[in-house]
Parts: sequence; C-alpha cells; structure tokens
Amino acid sequence: MIEGKETLSGGAVLRYGMVGGGAGSFIGEVHRKAVAFDNTARLVAGCFSRNFQNTLATGASLGVAGERLYRDYEEMAAGEAARRDGIDFVVIVTPNHAHYGAAKAFLTRGVHVVCDKPLTFTVAEAEELGQLARERNLLFGVTYTYSGYPLVKQAREMIRRGDIGAIRVVMGEYPQDWLATPAEAAGNKQAAWRTDPRYAGISNCVGDIGSHIEHTVSYITGLRIQSLCANLQSFGPDRALDDNGEVLVRYAGGASGVYWCSQIAVGHDNGLKVRIFGTKGSIEWEQENPNYLKVALLGQPVQILSRGCGYLYPPAARLARIPSGHPEGYYEAFANLYAAFGAALTKHRAGLALTEDDLDFPTAAAGIDGVKFINCCVESSQRGSVWVELDS
Amino acid sequence: MIEGKETLSGGAVLRYGMVGGGAGSFIGEVHRKAVAFDNTARLVAGCFSRNFQNTLATGASLGVAGERLYRDYEEMAAGEAARRDGIDFVVIVTPNHAHYGAAKAFLTRGVHVVCDKPLTFTVAEAEELGQLARERNLLFGVTYTYSGYPLVKQAREMIRRGDIGAIRVVMGEYPQDWLATPAEAAGNKQAAWRTDPRYAGISNCVGDIGSHIEHTVSYITGLRIQSLCANLQSFGPDRALDDNGEVLVRYAGGASGVYWCSQIAVGHDNGLKVRIFGTKGSIEWEQENPNYLKVALLGQPVQILSRGCGYLYPPAARLARIPSGHPEGYYEAFANLYAAFGAALTKHRAGLALTEDDLDFPTAAAGIDGVKFINCCVESSQRGSVWVELDS
Amino acid sequence: MIEGKETLSGGAVLRYGMVGGGAGSFIGEVHRKAVAFDNTARLVAGCFSRNFQNTLATGASLGVAGERLYRDYEEMAAGEAARRDGIDFVVIVTPNHAHYGAAKAFLTRGVHVVCDKPLTFTVAEAEELGQLARERNLLFGVTYTYSGYPLVKQAREMIRRGDIGAIRVVMGEYPQDWLATPAEAAGNKQAAWRTDPRYAGISNCVGDIGSHIEHTVSYITGLRIQSLCANLQSFGPDRALDDNGEVLVRYAGGASGVYWCSQIAVGHDNGLKVRIFGTKGSIEWEQENPNYLKVALLGQPVQILSRGCGYLYPPAARLARIPSGHPEGYYEAFANLYAAFGAALTKHRAGLALTEDDLDFPTAAAGIDGVKFINCCVESSQRGSVWVELDS
Amino acid sequence: MIEGKETLSGGAVLRYGMVGGGAGSFIGEVHRKAVAFDNTARLVAGCFSRNFQNTLATGASLGVAGERLYRDYEEMAAGEAARRDGIDFVVIVTPNHAHYGAAKAFLTRGVHVVCDKPLTFTVAEAEELGQLARERNLLFGVTYTYSGYPLVKQAREMIRRGDIGAIRVVMGEYPQDWLATPAEAAGNKQAAWRTDPRYAGISNCVGDIGSHIEHTVSYITGLRIQSLCANLQSFGPDRALDDNGEVLVRYAGGASGVYWCSQIAVGHDNGLKVRIFGTKGSIEWEQENPNYLKVALLGQPVQILSRGCGYLYPPAARLARIPSGHPEGYYEAFANLYAAFGAALTKHRAGLALTEDDLDFPTAAAGIDGVKFINCCVESSQRGSVWVELDS
Repeated sequence: MIEGKETLSGGAVLRYGMVGGGAGSFIGEVHRKAVAFDNTARLVAGCFSRNFQNTLATGASLGVAGERLYRDYEEMAAGEAARRDGIDFVVIVTPNHAHYGAAKAFLTRGVHVVCDKPLTFTVAEAEELGQLARERNLLFGVTYTYSGYPLVKQAREMIRRGDIGAIRVVMGEYPQDWLATPAEAAGNKQAAWRTDPRYAGISNCVGDIGSHIEHTVSYITGLRIQSLCANLQSFGPDRALDDNGEVLVRYAGGASGVYWCSQIAVGHDNGLKVRIFGTKGSIEWEQENPNYLKVALLGQPVQILSRGCGYLYPPAARLARIPSGHPEGYYEAFANLYAAFGAALTKHRAGLALTEDDLDFPTAAAGIDGVKFINCCVESSQRGSVWVELDS
Repeated sequence: MIEGKETLSGGAVLRYGMVGGGAGSFIGEVHRKAVAFDNTARLVAGCFSRNFQNTLATGASLGVAGERLYRDYEEMAAGEAARRDGIDFVVIVTPNHAHYGAAKAFLTRGVHVVCDKPLTFTVAEAEELGQLARERNLLFGVTYTYSGYPLVKQAREMIRRGDIGAIRVVMGEYPQDWLATPAEAAGNKQAAWRTDPRYAGISNCVGDIGSHIEHTVSYITGLRIQSLCANLQSFGPDRALDDNGEVLVRYAGGASGVYWCSQIAVGHDNGLKVRIFGTKGSIEWEQENPNYLKVALLGQPVQILSRGCGYLYPPAARLARIPSGHPEGYYEAFANLYAAFGAALTKHRAGLALTEDDLDFPTAAAGIDGVKFINCCVESSQRGSVWVELDS
Repeated sequence: MIEGKETLSGGAVLRYGMVGGGAGSFIGEVHRKAVAFDNTARLVAGCFSRNFQNTLATGASLGVAGERLYRDYEEMAAGEAARRDGIDFVVIVTPNHAHYGAAKAFLTRGVHVVCDKPLTFTVAEAEELGQLARERNLLFGVTYTYSGYPLVKQAREMIRRGDIGAIRVVMGEYPQDWLATPAEAAGNKQAAWRTDPRYAGISNCVGDIGSHIEHTVSYITGLRIQSLCANLQSFGPDRALDDNGEVLVRYAGGASGVYWCSQIAVGHDNGLKVRIFGTKGSIEWEQENPNYLKVALLGQPVQILSRGCGYLYPPAARLARIPSGHPEGYYEAFANLYAAFGAALTKHRAGLALTEDDLDFPTAAAGIDGVKFINCCVESSQRGSVWVELDS
Repeated sequence: MIEGKETLSGGAVLRYGMVGGGAGSFIGEVHRKAVAFDNTARLVAGCFSRNFQNTLATGASLGVAGERLYRDYEEMAAGEAARRDGIDFVVIVTPNHAHYGAAKAFLTRGVHVVCDKPLTFTVAEAEELGQLARERNLLFGVTYTYSGYPLVKQAREMIRRGDIGAIRVVMGEYPQDWLATPAEAAGNKQAAWRTDPRYAGISNCVGDIGSHIEHTVSYITGLRIQSLCANLQSFGPDRALDDNGEVLVRYAGGASGVYWCSQIAVGHDNGLKVRIFGTKGSIEWEQENPNYLKVALLGQPVQILSRGCGYLYPPAARLARIPSGHPEGYYEAFANLYAAFGAALTKHRAGLALTEDDLDFPTAAAGIDGVKFINCCVESSQRGSVWVELDS
C-alpha cells in the first residue's frame, strides 16, 4: 500500500491514469471500457498523446479534470505521485518504444503499472522493470489479452490437473491478413508504427502477435521454451520488419511445438489458435470462437465445452458473467485481466499478502519471457534460422 | 423534451433509473453494463426489488443515493418526476407481470421508458402503453437484444436492398435446454417465475424466447405475420406453461415459415438461429456465433461475412467497435440498443425531430407485435393447433 | 427361394436386372455402382428406358447380353422368370409413376424386388405390393438411402438402448436449391419429371425429399406419426406441384416434431438433417457431413462421434470399411443397403429364416409408410393445412 | 503398347494383377474397390502375400484363377509377362520394403506399374525405377490418394490461373492419433510394420503421412522445396522411428511453409489439411471434409466452394459423379487416380502420345520427390534439425 494516499470513499473503486490511447488510437478505448466493465477503476488522469492538444481533447471527452492532463509521462508520474488523491495505477498503451520509459517513470515514483505488450525492446529493459517492481513492492500487469478468456483458464486448469497427461506437442498459430497489402503506405496509423522499427522494435509480426502465441501457450501449459529455430519473412514491399514467422520450438522436458504468426494470411482476421497434445488427450481453443473449448480424450468422442456450463472447473466457471450460449468476447477477456489486477491491488493496498491465485494475470515475468522470445526469434532468423537457446 | 428538467453539465450523459434488477436477478446487471458500455447514461435511481432491503443493498453497491431508492415503482415514478434532476428514462427489468404497471406509471408522469420483453400480458395493455407514449411524445424502447447485433443489421440491410430477392421461406429456431429438467423445483429463481403464470403470463417458452424469433425475423425481413398455427407442449412434469413450441407461419405477401422454440432441447445453450430464403439468395445468422453471417447467392459459393470487414453495409459497419476477428458478444448487442436509444433521446431532448434511422431500436410497436404473437400462439394451440389470424 | 433356379458357381454373387437407369438418368448408375461396391450382385438383364435404343446402348456399355435387353418391364419379367439363370432380383429406378406396375410385374412372377422411393402413387398400390411380396415370400427393398449411413445406425441404436431417454421433440429438415429457378423449363430432365404430376404423382418436394425425412426419422426413432398438419407451397412459376413444405407432426406417445423440405432454399445442396431430443440427451446428424454424429447428454459437453472409432455400437461399427477420418459417402450408404439386401436374399435362397437383424434395410412397410406420409401431407395442405390422421 | 499382347474384347477394360493386399491387409481392398469403381480394370492375377496359403485363399475369394496365383513377385512378373492374356499393369500394395523389388521385377518385364507410396527406401532406388519406366516406355503411377479429390484439383487449377496470386506461405498438417499408445505392441499389424525399420524404412510418420503433405502441396501449388529443417520425434516408448515431425520449408522462389505430421495427436483421425496463402487470396482444404474448399480473396467474404457446383473449374467439375451435397469420399479419390491411369494406359496401348493432361496422376517423378523429402527430413533431424538442401 502506498503510504499517505487518500482512499476513495468506501474504497470501492481504484483510480487510474492512462499513458497513450488518445484520439486515433485503437487499443486505448478497449482498455478504458475493460476497466469500466466491472467498475474496476475510475480514470482520473492522462497523457493520452505526445500531442498535448490531443491529450486535452481526449481528456475532456472522458471527463478527466484539466489539471490532471499532462504533457508527458514524466510530468504525469511526478504530478500524480505528489497528489494525495493520485492514481493507484497507470495503464500504458503507447506504441512499444515508450513502454520502458513510461513504466520506469511510474515505478520509480511508486505507482503500480499495467503495460501493453510487448513489454520493452530489450530483455535487459524488461528485467529492469521487473526488478524495479519487486524492489518497490509494486504490482505490474502486462495485458496479454487472451489469458483473460474463461476457456483458456479451463484449458490451463485441465492441464494442471493432468486431464490430458504429459504434454508432447504444441501447435500455436495466429494468422491475420491486415498487412497482406502495404497498409502502412495507405495511411493506416496502426500499420505505420507497427512496421517501423523506431516504434515497434526489432520485430513487427512476432512482436505483435507471435508473442501472444508464446504467452497463451505458456499460460495454458506452464511449459518453458528451451530453444527455438525461427524463419521470419517480410513479404510486404519495402517492409523493414517481419510480417510472417514460422518457429520450431523445443520445451524443457522434451515436448516440441510449432508457432506460426502471420499478418499476410489472406482470409484470417484474428485467428489465434492453440492446440495442446498430451499423452492422454488434447485441447484446442480458437480466439474467434472463444466461448468453446474442444477436448479429446484417448478413445473417446471429441467434446465441445461451452462457457457457462456446470461442468467447467472453478477458474473458468467463476468468470462466466452470463449463461452459456450468450457470447462473451474480447472486451470481457480484457475486463477479466483488469478485474484480477484490481482485486489484487485492492488486497495489496489493504496490506494483505497476495497468493499465486491472486496473481492470476500476466505479470512482469510474462512480459520478460515475451521479450526474450521475440529477441530469440529475430536472432535465430538473422543467423540463418539456426537453433537458439532462450535462456542463454 | 421534458420541460423544466435540469440537464447534466455538458449534456453528455443521460440519467436513468431501474425497476427490477436487484440482487439475485440476472438481466438487471446486463442492462446496467450495457448502458455503461458506451457511457450512454448514469444510474441515479432505483426500485430494484419488491423487497426494499434488497433495493437498499443493491442501490448502495451501485452508488445510488439513498434518497433515490424507492419502495415501489409508483413511488419512484412520482419521486423522480418531481425532481429537477430526475431521471431521463427508466429501465424496467422485472418479471413480465410488472411491466405494464411500471411502464404506465412512468409514462403517465412523462418519463421515457425502456422495458424488457415480452412487453405485457395482453395486447390491450401493450397497445395502451404504445398509445400513452405517442400521446405524451415519449420514447419507448423494448429490449429485444438480438436486433442489436451488427450482423443482424447487415442482414436487414441486405434484404432492404434486395440482395436476396423476394422472400419465400423463413426458418427461425431458438433451442435451449435449461428447463429439460424441472429446474423450477430445484431452486432456480429464473425457472420459478418463468414457469409460473402469475409472473410470466400465459406462456413461458414462446413468451420468453419464441418472441425473440418473432422480433428478429420481423426486424430483418420486415415481413408481417398474417396467420399462424402453433403446437405448444409442456414436457416438464407439472409445468403449467409451455416449454416447447412449434409454429407454422404465413406472412402477408405469400412467404411461409416455421418457428421453433424450446427450453428442453438438450445440447443447446441459447441457439437462436434465423434463416431467410429469397428468390435470389439466402441469409443465415446464429446468435452463438454472432460475428459471422452466412450468405448464399444463386449459383455462387456460400459466403461468410465477418463483423468489422470493409464490405459490410453502413448500418452494420458503423457498429464494429473493434477489428474483425476480435469477438463482440451479447453485451455489445445490448449496448448497441441503448446507444441508439440514448442518441435518439438526446436528440429528442434537444427538440429535434427523430427520423426512422434514429429509431433503429425496438419500439412499442415491436412490443405490441410480440404480445400479439404470443397470444396468437397460445390461442391457436389451445384450440387444437388451428390457424389463427394475427390481426383478427 | 425360387424353385428350379440355377445358382451361380459357389453361390457367391447374385444376379440382378434393372428397370430404368438408361443413358441420361442419374440414379441408375448410382445403384449399379452400389451393387458392385461389395460385389453384391452382377447385372445380367435390363430394360433401361422406354426407348429401346437407349436400352440397347446402355446394355451394351454395361456388358449385358443382348438377349436379356427388353422392350418393357412386362417382357423382362416374363423373360427372366422363364430362364434357369434368371435374375434373382430386379432394381426399379424409373420415375415414380412406373414403380407400381414394374414391381407388380416382377413380384407376380416370383422375382425379388428393390424399388426406389416413393414406392407408389397411392397407399392402396403400396399396400398391394407389400401384400404380394408377403404372399409370394419375396424380399422387397425400398432404397431410402440415408438409413444406410453408419452414423444413422449409431443414432438408432443409441435410442433403442435409451441413451437419450424418451423422445420429446424431433426436428427434420431437407433443404435443397436446385429448383429455386424454373430448371424444368431449362432442359433439366430430372426437374422436368419431378415437377410433372404424370411422372411424380401428387407431390414433388414432399415426395422426393420430405419422404426421406419421414423415413430417416422413423428409422432412427421408431416413432409412429399419428397426425400431421402440412403447409405446402409451390414457389416456382407455373409449377403444378409443391417445391417447399412445412409440416407439424404429432407422434403416438406424445412427442412432437417439425419437418421442413425445400427445393428452393438457396445455398443448400442436399441438407438432410435430423435432430432428436430426448429426456436425457439429443442426437444430431447431417447428411452432408455424414461421418460424424453430434450427441449431447444432459449436463455434459457436446460430443462428436466419428465413424470408425472404437466406441461406436456394433450396428455402426461393423459398417466402417476404412478407418475413421477417411470419408465414406453416398455410394457407401447405398452399398450398405444392397449388401444387407443381398445377404438377406442369399440366406433366404438357402431356405433359412430371416431375423429382424437380417432385415435391416427399408422394406415394403417403410415404402407404405412413405406413401401414407406424402398423401397425408398433400391432403392436409389442400384442406387448408388442417390436422390429418395418418392411419385414418 | 505392349507388343504381342492379346486385347480384351472391345478393349473396354484393362487386366491387372496385385502384389500384396492379402487377407489382413487394409489398403489392398481399397485399391481393388477403387479399380472396380469405374470398371477401370479386372483383377486376373495376384501374389497377395508372402504366405502362399493367404494368396490362394485371397485369390479364390476374389475369383482369380488358380494358375495366376503366384508364390512371389518375381514368379508373377515372369509368368504374366509370358502370357498372351497377361496383365496390363500391376498394383503394388505391400509394405514399403518390397516396393522397389516388385516394381523393378515388373518394369523389367514390360509391365506397367502402380505402386503405393512411399515409393522406395532410397532416392537412388526411386530414380532407378523412374529411369526404367522411361526407358521401357511404361506408365508408372504412385498412389498419393489425396490428389484424386475433386476439390484438390480445383485448388490446383485456381493457383495455375493465378486466382490467389503468387504464393507466399504454405501450411500443411496431417495429424492422426492411432499411435498415441503403443499399438504395435498390442497386435495391430499396421502399427507393427510401420514402426519397424525393416518394413517401413528410415521413417514411420514422415514416410507414411508427411509424404502426403509433401505431395498434396506440391500437386496443388507446383512449388519446389529448396531446403528444409526438420524436428522429428519418437514419443512412443521403445519406438525406433518417428511418430511426430515438424518441418520448416523454404521453396524455390521465396515462399516458406510449415509441415506437421503426427500419429500421436489425440483427437485427430486423419486430419490432412493444406492452406495456401498468396498475394491475392488463400485456399484451404481438409481431407475429412473433402467436398468443400474454403477460398478467401483479398477484401471479400470467405467463400465455401462445394463439389458438384457449376462454378468449379473443369478439372474439378468433370470429377463430380453425383450432385453437390451428396458426399463423395476416399474411395472416389482413389478411383479417380485409377480412372486417370487407366485412361492414359488405354491411350498408350493404342499407340497415342500422352499429353500432360493425360498424366494427371502421380507418376514416378512424384514418387522420387517423396523419397527425397523423407530422406531429407530424417537427415536434417539426425544432424540436429539443421537446414538441408533437397536437391543437394
């Protein structure tokens, strides 16, 4: 708990600020809606853009007081840390290049952080943020959306319980097609920064969506990648970064896998799909049909599990807001992450110790793993698609 | 516009109150989240339960001021109408039996109304509410959720434009299985009131979900039911009302159709599905997979349209909050209804005339049609499943 | 057993002849391939067309001796009955109008019969054929293709064993779109005779495909239709017979159902689909994806059963020719009917009594039920879609 | 044309013999049914097993004359080559180890050959067979089943016409689960020889099913593999050969791909699936649902093409035996290969030159490519999953 901070009346709702997410951005509004979904926190401060006019306009439209709209994240971190009613946590939703600086600015001033992925450009930066959070006893969340889906939690719990036995093979894929044409040259702002090394870092496709495969698999299975062999391509004309990547993976313990991410796979919108094969069964989950989980057990008919049904394990069951057959989607997955983060923060503020269950959201450790994965893929590919150890 | 009412600062957000939706109810929280989703309105008053303690507790948890928590809807209608900062509209989410009385109480005091379906027990009651709203120049919304889905709007627009030609045949179905066993005897509160004529009216299954088929088809196609022949059953032991219904339909203009609704169809969660067959093509939409629309044109491959893609018509395109492949669901459909209602109300309050496009949400007319349909089905079935004219 | 007939060396293979199926027909070649699939019988005689030149040409191409090519079915029945190496059974695949006469011609001369459906124009004719077969101790098969599919047999066996409890509701549908346009006026031979009462009888759509729903449901469930209410339409311009039909069904014992058949349902090729809902579970089978069966048991995940897997019941398991995942289709379903008929005939010829299991193919009784169903639907619809008893 | 051979009366049907396919084998009967499906050829000779008693019994049950049942393939090749009514071609369906010897025995005696895949153990052997066939002017077919499916031919034709532009990425997978448990130790004859290097060669999984991915992709796309990096595993206890393989592929011209084959992927029966992504569109085909093809073109809704529909290109259209919606399957795919082979052979026997279209079945060249692929995968994996050139 941050000393000297004023608590909200009743302590019911947390206060948060946002860095990034001004007019013209996509993901900022998703985060705001997700935080609001369960009344997890109230937006009270922001630096929504490098353009202060944008910040002012966005802030006004969102009902943020003018005095809490800032020109840059340093000013915001300093300003909020100094207020008795300062924000409890900051949400960082800028392009990748600003994650490290912004997160560090708030952590060093004692503000809890939720940051978008990929966490940083380098592993050292990510580890530094993790170290800072640990030292300052601050919560650090990384918004790997897809681990917020109830059926993903069901998959994780089934594997924890041994329902499908020891894992042998993993297939992860994430095809999209929004960069099949040179959208970055056609005025698409998202495409522009994601394909620009200055804002995206050393990878576009693996960084943006390959990292989601890595996290979702890791979250579900608990497997550690030992080494990988990546073949990254850039099919778009004059594109500096990858827009397609194929990766062979070896996990500690002997399982193997394949990850494929693509932004040029015509016909696919947002096709994250994970398949886990064990000695006794298998699990398959698709993000575009997220309320169902395909499960096969040796010698039995394939089963389709449905969100909200009574046979689900508690970690999945408790996340169903509405009955089975009433579709929940992307916002709810995001909201689940924020609800978990908010509950943990509330408990933390009350001085209580957090259990592993309390921390059922992606933390700095997941963020660090993601950066390692991205860097490893790029290194492997650049060296001729050779095998590279992840923790070398 | 209600004379003498105080407007919110900036006029940005409307104020609303809720009747029903106390602790233990399901749909109340869905409505509240849907209203909040786009910041359409702020909850400031309520009579959440016939049990005042429940109202007080619910109100407190929702941050409603104690002075605006009421013992019954009459008191609430009177109290709110008298305040300068009174609610702009009320949301009625009680069991069916209270819809008529509550809606009337607010309409007669000049408060706009959003009411759950089925609107009333009798056609006369429904028509009276419609008449009252017209006379008082009040907006009246009925929350037929499924017309809020973007792909449903795409289907409607395609038919309006003649893409599938003149409609010949309609297939509507809505299978569920939550009443396959006597859940009402096992403590399920939803099951208890829905199977009890005192609270549900003359129909359970047709009233609850058959009416959704009727509205969704009507909304998409614009077809008017001329006559119908219904075979309703009650399979649950000692169940007073129907839990399964099969209906042959004849539309004005010569098209025909079949509606099937069931609460005992084991294996189905919430399977609303509508198929429309025209001279030149067909359209198929399923609620459990709501982000996609199956379209077939004569002699061409079947097509799968995806929410968020550029080829959608404007009424569907403008409702995509997030890119294609990022699933939206039930809450967003509800939120779309409230956003449309809120926008219309804001315009109405500003004294502007509302166009047909402004009224793209189910109104009292839809509510009246629904009650007619339910009553016709029950009459037909009770008379031996004979054909009954809808507007006789 | 036919006295005095010569048996084939080893008795391994039966001899058959065919009425209909000349050049230009569709289904004749399907029957021939199906009979050949398991070497069930050898084609040795034929009257393939009313046009003798067609018969001669077809016969020559099929290797049938010229002396066994006949001008009409009477001549063929007489000729074959007189030969010591005469055919064991005849396959009748003409348009509907000739079924009765041809079948009678062979039955009266002691030749076993396999006849396409619908069996005859009138119930009296169908019953007469059944009576003749009984009196002469002849086998009579009716080629309702779809009961030949292994997963249909699995469904039947599950219901026999009570796996889904007592049946409450049945949904059967069979949408096609090949008559969405006036194909009969565009030179389509199939369309021409099926829409012509002289060749098709009193119904086109119900007769051709509605009867498949009726049989498939009856075969799977064992339910008897008590009464029905049918609404038949003819959407094609100047079409004398129905091309779409919607039927409410009441079964003996209290279950209810809906059958929908259509030839104008744009986007559907051959969409026979049957869903059976019982007190404890449900079963769903689709002809276009015939190697899988969807099964739902109360409170459990939906299951997908796959042809060839070890968990299937014996009646389905023994029909898998190739491992699961290797698709079998329409020909194999047909071949299964002929294999069953051939095995029964071989046993019958050997003078052995046939058990119910031996007769696991559609017999005259099924053919009679089909004609009753068709006639009832037409009567109901013509009288204003009133309820008609099937066995009145 | 083979000099001095007697032709069948009318020349309508070819004569063939079979090596392998005795009682207890699986694929032999599939080949026989496929050859018979279109009356392509008549079985007149055989050496069905290394066990002569099995050959005699199998031959008798198939109606093959005793004098044409042989103790080994050398005897058979010599015997048949010496007869004026000798076989036109031989079908070799033994385990892999005997392919080379048997094929060579017949080729050297001037008999056309159809051989199962993988063609041989070594590339040199495969090339020798190809060389022999060329020198002797003999037809050589290799039964890669899946290129016989109509929708696979549609995919190939679409790519040839440029419908999806230049190919960028290929995803091929073939998951099965029949070796998830040690079936070879449980008396499964198929499992026993496939996991035994003496009969299977240097690979089990890649050899058996990985090679099907390789061929199907190659057939559809025309792409040549330049190099690959394979990670093969053996998860079954004490299994000498691979049962799972993951392969990164680089094609000449710059496209890349991933192949995954597995026999331990619980929940999959026979899941060959190929996805091709081009600059303008994509194509997806699944063997378990083989009558449909998913096609996506840039910026348009995904399309589902159905076998038998009028919009298909001629190479696919002409293979539809029955109307769309009537499922064809595995046997028909096989039969299509034999029909093409038989037609080519008939033309060849008539002394006519064969065009590329006549040779639309997998030939020795495809067989050689398959053996190269298998050997490359094993070499890559054994050397630590490094990149290996295919044509080094």
